[in-house]
Formats: sequence, C-alpha cells, structure tokens
Amino acid sequence: MTVPASEVAPRKVAFLGLGVMGGPMARHLLQAGHHVTVFNRTEEKARRWRDAYGGVVAASPRQAAEGADIVLACVGDDKDVESVALGESGAFCGMGKGAIFVDHTTASAAGARRLYEQAAGRGLHAIDAPVSGGQAGAENGALTVMCGGDEEPFEAFAPVAKAYSRAITLLGPAGSGQLAKMVNQICIAGLVQGLSEGIAFGERAGLDMTKVLGVIGKGAAQSWQMDQRGATMIEDHFDFGFAVDWMRKDLRLAIDESRQNGAMLPVAALVDQFYAEVQARGGGRWDTSSLIRLLR
Amino acid sequence: MTVPASEVAPRKVAFLGLGVMGGPMARHLLQAGHHVTVFNRTEEKARRWRDAYGGVVAASPRQAAEGADIVLACVGDDKDVESVALGESGAFCGMGKGAIFVDHTTASAAGARRLYEQAAGRGLHAIDAPVSGGQAGAENGALTVMCGGDEEPFEAFAPVAKAYSRAITLLGPAGSGQLAKMVNQICIAGLVQGLSEGIAFGERAGLDMTKVLGVIGKGAAQSWQMDQRGATMIEDHFDFGFAVDWMRKDLRLAIDESRQNGAMLPVAALVDQFYAEVQARGGGRWDTSSLIRLLR
Repeated sequence: MTVPASEVAPRKVAFLGLGVMGGPMARHLLQAGHHVTVFNRTEEKARRWRDAYGGVVAASPRQAAEGADIVLACVGDDKDVESVALGESGAFCGMGKGAIFVDHTTASAAGARRLYEQAAGRGLHAIDAPVSGGQAGAENGALTVMCGGDEEPFEAFAPVAKAYSRAITLLGPAGSGQLAKMVNQICIAGLVQGLSEGIAFGERAGLDMTKVLGVIGKGAAQSWQMDQRGATMIEDHFDFGFAVDWMRKDLRLAIDESRQNGAMLPVAALVDQFYAEVQARGGGRWDTSSLIRLLR
Repeated sequence: MTVPASEVAPRKVAFLGLGVMGGPMARHLLQAGHHVTVFNRTEEKARRWRDAYGGVVAASPRQAAEGADIVLACVGDDKDVESVALGESGAFCGMGKGAIFVDHTTASAAGARRLYEQAAGRGLHAIDAPVSGGQAGAENGALTVMCGGDEEPFEAFAPVAKAYSRAITLLGPAGSGQLAKMVNQICIAGLVQGLSEGIAFGERAGLDMTKVLGVIGKGAAQSWQMDQRGATMIEDHFDFGFAVDWMRKDLRLAIDESRQNGAMLPVAALVDQFYAEVQARGGGRWDTSSLIRLLR
C-alpha cells in the first residue's frame, strides 16, 4: 500500500542513530510535528542535532524508548541493531506493550526475523524497513521504504514514515524488507557494471558518449543509473552518491543470504570483487558508478 | 539531430532484405508514399511482399538500385552486406553518382568503414545505420537509428527514415553507428543478467516478486528491461522479443571490436557464455531476458 500524504496525527517517536541517513530522517519527523526523542552512540552528535532542530536527547536507547509509540533505528549493521534494541539499556526494555520497533538499517533477514521473535515475546512489534534513495533521498524526504512484518503495526507506522519517504510498502513477513533491499542491490550491481563496460568501450572506440547515451537512453538499454549517473561517469566524477563501502556491505548480505537460499549470483559476486579493487584504489567513499574507473 | 515528423517529399528508394526487420521497414516506406523497389535473396518472399503491399520486385540488388536516390539494406551480417553491395550484381554497380547506400544491418565497424571507402571511390555515399527497437519497433515504425557517416547524405536520408523510426541520429564518422549499437548491447547484457539474478534470488527467498519490482522499479534499480520484461520473466515467458541468437551475434561483434580497441568486457563476455548455455538448452529464439532460466 501507499499512504496518502494527508494530515498525520502527531506521535511520540524515538529515533536511534543520527548518521547521514538517520539524522535527516529524524529531522523530517520533527518538522512533521511528531514528538521526537533521539539517541546516538556518540552523545555529542545527538546534542548538536537537538541544538540545530529541537527534540529531546536521551542517554540510552531504553530511555529514548520510554513512552514512545514507535521507536525507529538507523544504525550500521546487525550487531548495532542488537545493541540498541536488546540488553538492559536497549530500547525493548523501555518500550510499552504494543509499541512498534522499526529498523531502517540495511541488515540481514535472519537478524530481522530474530528481532521480530524477541519483540513478539515481549508483546512488542518489530518491522524491518531498509530504505533506498541514499543520502539525497533522506535529505529530501524521498526515500523508498521496503517493509517486512505484520500488517497492523505496519498500518500504524506507515503514516509516520510519510515524513521522510515517498513510498512505503509491506512486502511480506519479517525479513521481507531486507530481502527486497538485497534484490535491489543485486539488480544494481549487474546494471552498473554493464553501463560501465558500455561507456568505457564507447570511449575507447572514440565515440562521443554524451551523444550516444542520449540516443540509447531512450530504448532497451535505458536505466535510472544511465539517466542519473551517465553524465558523471563520463566526467569521471564520483565524489557523491551511494558509497562503494556501503554497496559492499549490502552485497555481502545478499551473498550470505544466497548461501542459505541456494540462489546463484555469478555477476553480483564478481562485481563485489571489482568493488574490492575500487576500495583498494582508495575509492571506498566513491559513488557505486566508479566501477568504470577499473576499465579506464 | 531528430527530424520533425513533417511531410517528406516522395523519393525513389530500394530496399534489400525483407526479413523480420526489413519487411516492415520497407512497408512503412511504401505507406509513406515513397517509390519502393525491393530485392530479397529468396525472390518468392519479395513477390509475396509485393502482392501484399505493392512496390516493384527486382531480380538483383543492382537492378533494384538503378535510378534510386537511396538504397537501404537490412540483411544478416558483414558477408551478406558485401554480397548485396559489391560485385557485378551488387547495388553499387547500379547506383548513380551521389546516391546513398544505407546499411541497417547490425555488423562490424571495420566492415562499415570498408564499405564507406568503396562507396567514396565510386562517387557514392555510405551510412552505417543499425537500429534498436527489435521486431516490434520495426512493425510499429518506432525504431531508433544510430548512424555513422557524413553529414550531407545523412541530412538527405534522415527524413526518409522517419517512415519507420522515432529517432535517428548521426553519431560520428563511418562505423560510429555500429559502435553505438555495440555499446547498447553491452549495457543490456550486464543489465539483464543483474535483473535475472535479482528476480531469481527474490523467488528463492520467497518474495512476491511482482510486488517487489513494483517498489524497486521506482528507484535506482529501475530499467527499461525491468519495466518491460520483469513481468514476463516472473511468468517464465520468453516466446517473443529480441532473440538470444541475435544477441549472441551482436555480442560477438562487440567482443571482436574490443580486441582492437583494448576495452575490457568481463561481464559482457561472461553473459555471452551464459547465452551459449541458453542456446544449448534450445533457447536460441527465446527473448534475451531468458537468462533467468539458468538461475531457476
């Protein structure tokens, strides 16, 4: 389902993790009129965020979660999610019965299922909800949110997520959001490598690649990546966008999952190796489209 | 440049090769009011075409070309192009000074340059002009035409090509059309393999892939192939579209060219091998998106 952009009643929410994604997401929640309490591992960052935008800083995930209807997290990986959700100072200990834990971290499907079970054991709800759209999407409130979990808490959470997202969809039971995000990254891996090989080939053949992409970008070779990254690839400009380090983390999750479900990922696994070479060349923070540098 | 769809003065044209692409292209020329003489290696096919649509059947490419302003060819490969253009019964012998030979065949850039030189030696013009859009594009008159050659004959030919194309662009000197078509196919190879791996992974993970593509198809993983082929890939339906046999021919041209220009095509070359396996499974006539069958 897609939630209409109608008025949303203000809710008490907690946001755990104020990184390049979480920071702007929490800001959008505040600006949409919600009551936002934030927690960040480095507290100084949370205080700077509060001084800039407002809201309340909590000393622990548990404290942030107390009295919140919805607790949202956007941290690094499975381990970070567990550390903000579980344990004595974790959010689960502070949440009241029926409250919803939403994990925006891109992490494993198995971890999402475990968290769902642990939440259920305490009378809580958990939704895995990784996002796509990158830093720009977070800043512009235009993320896509892919959810796994139960319908009732999803319906309660979705109107709140409108503050920072353009589309939010429930894709199936716990873990389905993470799996859908993996599908997204697998598609992109092959796609960007194909685009890179095409542009690098055309350059070596002496073609005016701006002209060529203008023509083939209207047909069967068209892609979002060609539309949005073709020009910057031609300019050899990669100091922006979705970083290679993040892409490698996401591809590792997909490759790990494929060991469980038996899927074959010959090109995604190869492209993951190419990204290792981009990292070795110092490009961990370059945009994913920097694959073309290996071909120049 | 893109030619406006305004009225075009009727020209005397010849069309060589009435296959799945050439047949409908020649028909569009006729329906646009041009005087069309056709040649086909199997003459019976040319007669059937004439009986259905009109025009005149010639006994040789040379006879078809006599008195024509523009001679168009759409045949199988370099050898077929040479056989309709050169030699005693070839079109070049029938064409008058200043006439234009347009080759719509997907073939090598070196062959296109050779033909250009041979045409120039006789006071003729040659343009390499491979198309994209497939059989459906030919039938609907919606092809994209990528041209290499000189500007003057291009300007004369482009209004005529409007009969069967939506976009026609001069990309550079002789061979540039062929090279641009190779770029197109290289991009598609990686893209379709990525899409196949993504969908097959999602299926094994138990996701509702129609739902998932509906979500990720609005973001950074979007492509023409996902939009147009995602549903048929999910349905395992490949009895249509752009055939694997044709794709392998086109990838061979790109890989051969890369041996000359030094471009690296690690994924395009790998996907070419996957297509060999699709052929071995009897899928030579299946759509290019049938790569996913190797992953199921």
